[in-house]
Amino acid sequence: MTADSAVQFSLVQLDDYGPWTVTPEPRRETSLQALQSRLYADLADFVGDRDGYVFPGRFDNMVAATNGIDPVAHRRFQERVRNHYPVTASIGVGTGETPAAALGAASEQLQTTGSAQDADRRERLAAPHERSPTGPLSVAHFDVVDATGTYTDRVNAVDAELIVRRATATLAEYMRRDHDAVTSFVGGDNVIAICPVLSDSAYDEAVEHVRAATDVDLRVGVGTARSPFAAGQAAKHALETGRETGASVTTPDSAPVNADD
Amino acid sequence: MTADSAVQFSLVQLDDYGPWTVTPEPRRETSLQALQSRLYADLADFVGDRDGYVFPGRFDNMVAATNGIDPVAHRRFQERVRNHYPVTASIGVGTGETPAAALGAASEQLQTTGSAQDADRRERLAAPHERSPTGPLSVAHFDVVDATGTYTDRVNAVDAELIVRRATATLAEYMRRDHDAVTSFVGGDNVIAICPVLSDSAYDEAVEHVRAATDVDLRVGVGTARSPFAAGQAAKHALETGRETGASVTTPDSAPVNADD
Amino acid sequence: MTADSAVQFSLVQLDDYGPWTVTPEPRRETSLQALQSRLYADLADFVGDRDGYVFPGRFDNMVAATNGIDPVAHRRFQERVRNHYPVTASIGVGTGETPAAALGAASEQLQTTGSAQDADRRERLAAPHERSPTGPLSVAHFDVVDATGTYTDRVNAVDAELIVRRATATLAEYMRRDHDAVTSFVGGDNVIAICPVLSDSAYDEAVEHVRAATDVDLRVGVGTARSPFAAGQAAKHALETGRETGASVTTPDSAPVNADD
Amino acid sequence: MTADSAVQFSLVQLDDYGPWTVTPEPRRETSLQALQSRLYADLADFVGDRDGYVFPGRFDNMVAATNGIDPVAHRRFQERVRNHYPVTASIGVGTGETPAAALGAASEQLQTTGSAQDADRRERLAAPHERSPTGPLSVAHFDVVDATGTYTDRVNAVDAELIVRRATATLAEYMRRDHDAVTSFVGGDNVIAICPVLSDSAYDEAVEHVRAATDVDLRVGVGTARSPFAAGQAAKHALETGRETGASVTTPDSAPVNADD
Repeated sequence: MTADSAVQFSLVQLDDYGPWTVTPEPRRETSLQALQSRLYADLADFVGDRDGYVFPGRFDNMVAATNGIDPVAHRRFQERVRNHYPVTASIGVGTGETPAAALGAASEQLQTTGSAQDADRRERLAAPHERSPTGPLSVAHFDVVDATGTYTDRVNAVDAELIVRRATATLAEYMRRDHDAVTSFVGGDNVIAICPVLSDSAYDEAVEHVRAATDVDLRVGVGTARSPFAAGQAAKHALETGRETGASVTTPDSAPVNADD
Repeated sequence: MTADSAVQFSLVQLDDYGPWTVTPEPRRETSLQALQSRLYADLADFVGDRDGYVFPGRFDNMVAATNGIDPVAHRRFQERVRNHYPVTASIGVGTGETPAAALGAASEQLQTTGSAQDADRRERLAAPHERSPTGPLSVAHFDVVDATGTYTDRVNAVDAELIVRRATATLAEYMRRDHDAVTSFVGGDNVIAICPVLSDSAYDEAVEHVRAATDVDLRVGVGTARSPFAAGQAAKHALETGRETGASVTTPDSAPVNADD
Repeated sequence: MTADSAVQFSLVQLDDYGPWTVTPEPRRETSLQALQSRLYADLADFVGDRDGYVFPGRFDNMVAATNGIDPVAHRRFQERVRNHYPVTASIGVGTGETPAAALGAASEQLQTTGSAQDADRRERLAAPHERSPTGPLSVAHFDVVDATGTYTDRVNAVDAELIVRRATATLAEYMRRDHDAVTSFVGGDNVIAICPVLSDSAYDEAVEHVRAATDVDLRVGVGTARSPFAAGQAAKHALETGRETGASVTTPDSAPVNADD
Repeated sequence: MTADSAVQFSLVQLDDYGPWTVTPEPRRETSLQALQSRLYADLADFVGDRDGYVFPGRFDNMVAATNGIDPVAHRRFQERVRNHYPVTASIGVGTGETPAAALGAASEQLQTTGSAQDADRRERLAAPHERSPTGPLSVAHFDVVDATGTYTDRVNAVDAELIVRRATATLAEYMRRDHDAVTSFVGGDNVIAICPVLSDSAYDEAVEHVRAATDVDLRVGVGTARSPFAAGQAAKHALETGRETGASVTTPDSAPVNADD
């Protein structure tokens, strides 16, 4: 890893959202859930269209790896939110050598525009025109070994979810602390981490850490490329290979993939 | 609480979803995120329309408190999924004295119809025609005290989310183990638990448990009613009262609400 | 047909929508198209969930046959629009012996609440609590004979659409003038009319009128029931029968259907 | 106008859609309406994101002016449909000196891939790699003079729609025949035509033609640029100017606009 930044993250924050949800009185919870989920889906399609990756974060603060996505595109997304939803969004964009550093920079950018609950702050875009990240990034796509047979088809859904969420939290904290990665549960038994380029043994240790702490067996496929999408597709292919070979960790070295860079 | 069941839960499971996501090869992650989120949003509106409550679960296994929602309505939702999405859904419905027991019964119902990854299982509805739950249930709506000032406006978004997710996991496991509740993060700094009717001190202890384990300060508003929506709205009003009074726990006794039963 | 009203229509009007579309300056046309279409889709699902029928109208003025849908449900839809969109909706509800009379009554109800471009009018619901319609209504589902072979697979799409739209306009005006029906193009080569109960010969004459005026060959299936959905499903089955038999007009008498009343 | 093509159109056709709507038996009409509308909304956002313009056409055959949108982007849209909907789409792309010629070319391209109701034709993309259109195009944005005061606030909604639809059909046929334009109703009292570059008097005559034939008073703003979006925004600004000045026809000459080319 050089001194050049490798990753760009964007933090998409709904403006003054908390107060809106209870004005003039608390809105129906299911409606709020639906609103948040649809807005996130639109962000996912928007970012995916530009070969980025996206996580729901806390839904009022959504997170995207946006290498190569410029401020004009970010403005376009803000326009879409304004035209389609009863809320607006501000966005901070940051770059860094690691995913966590980039998201930290994005967070600071956004924080300088005002509070998330400042009623006067609307549709800010804090996107310093820096040189676009040039380094590669890795996507690590984890799943739970035989989640269907072990959990989904056997135990109370409340417990299956607690187990997967516990493993996710443990993994996410570990990857943040030891590798400056940004990690999120993405549905089913899948957890995705956007990482700096790491050694295979780093992933071995991560899987071992989660097993020791939570008794959950993870498997991971890793891809490395310049765009989050290309890295992510390579990771998915590597994970498929791992499902076949039974390997805990499958990386581009162990399983060559043909995703475009 | 009598021997009568108090709660009905429905477990909505996408049929053979994991395999679909990688057939013929892995689909774009952002597209999957968008699909799952929109389908969940539709479930939220559907259940909300009938005064239920809903949680995303693991997205391929979504969870709803569905007191008073009959099998015909569940079929209607399956029809909607079939007509609007490239996937289908099976549903298990269960009742119980507690939320976790009801969701456990729903899980078992669904498991008897076949595996989540059985390619031949499609659109099953396992909904035993039992007497509809008659007892009241509680909704406990938690949030983090001054989350915006303490976290959102100050720290790296990656850490803000880790903190909230850790508090959620700790609370959810505690409420499941000690009170047979079903708990979920629902966005922002909000966590909702569907609970049996509990004493005020039970909530005091839950808040204290999370504070001791994670150093996160929660506040909670509690509502009790026969429909999840009515209980949930009462909880939201109680939480608003708590924000004003500074009380950690606000229940119907401490803050009378006027939501319909 | 007795003096009792047979049909209820609802007119859903976006509040002050025209001015919104150009404030502070003209919004992107494709965004407006997307907004209108999604809002209409939500109305379609909402009304369909309650066994009504729905037409896009002019998109800022949407039309629904809402027999049996009460004011509380209409309020629920207004709440959903408010929670999910940057615009709000007012609704007029009317009943009548014929569809056009009912929609006329709904129009008058709505007009009494203020102008469509009154900036102060928001979320009005003008729904006189009258006795719910008790009479049956008919749904006539038309399509173009061999539209795919004659038009879609052969001619310039601009002309295929002009032909279908011309036939629709001609049919809609005829059905309104001669039978007080409400008629709409619903996609593909399909046109649906909500009608009073008419004789078979009335449909023969309608088909003949369109053929004489536009040279387009229509076929129609007719269903009659107390709910728009049941009538509409019967009409769809009748149309399928007509596709097999080659009959221009297929009614419940000519093709018994098993849709519930 | 030179021999160079000025416009690119894309015809997006749902594969084997008619049969799907009645398999295994007729699907709920409101569900089909919702599906079509959401899919169209997604197309509108997708094309709008790339500065194109879009019309609903017949919903199973949607129409877009796609100058500058390449085959890769079209493939991306097909991927999105496949991942989000129970149906798939084929697309024909064509270029021409006029909008109607371009849409005709797109229609022919699509027709060569097989019938719209060929069960074996899925996700074809017929996009000849020709030189991208270089000439300018015009967008003419029409509305009805005082539609709210004359119709919406006064007459039965069934009649208000018939009047607007009749005016649209008359205008669309005229613009197709005399100017090779592609015209569509887009909601409210708005009709948009994508046109070759025409003289002001051509628009005067179009407005006069509709007035003579239908007694409906139209007004039009015209914009000319290389992208449909830029031309469309200029047309919207021109129409706003016309609303202020009362002019029937406002063109870039009469009202300079500052939309980007």
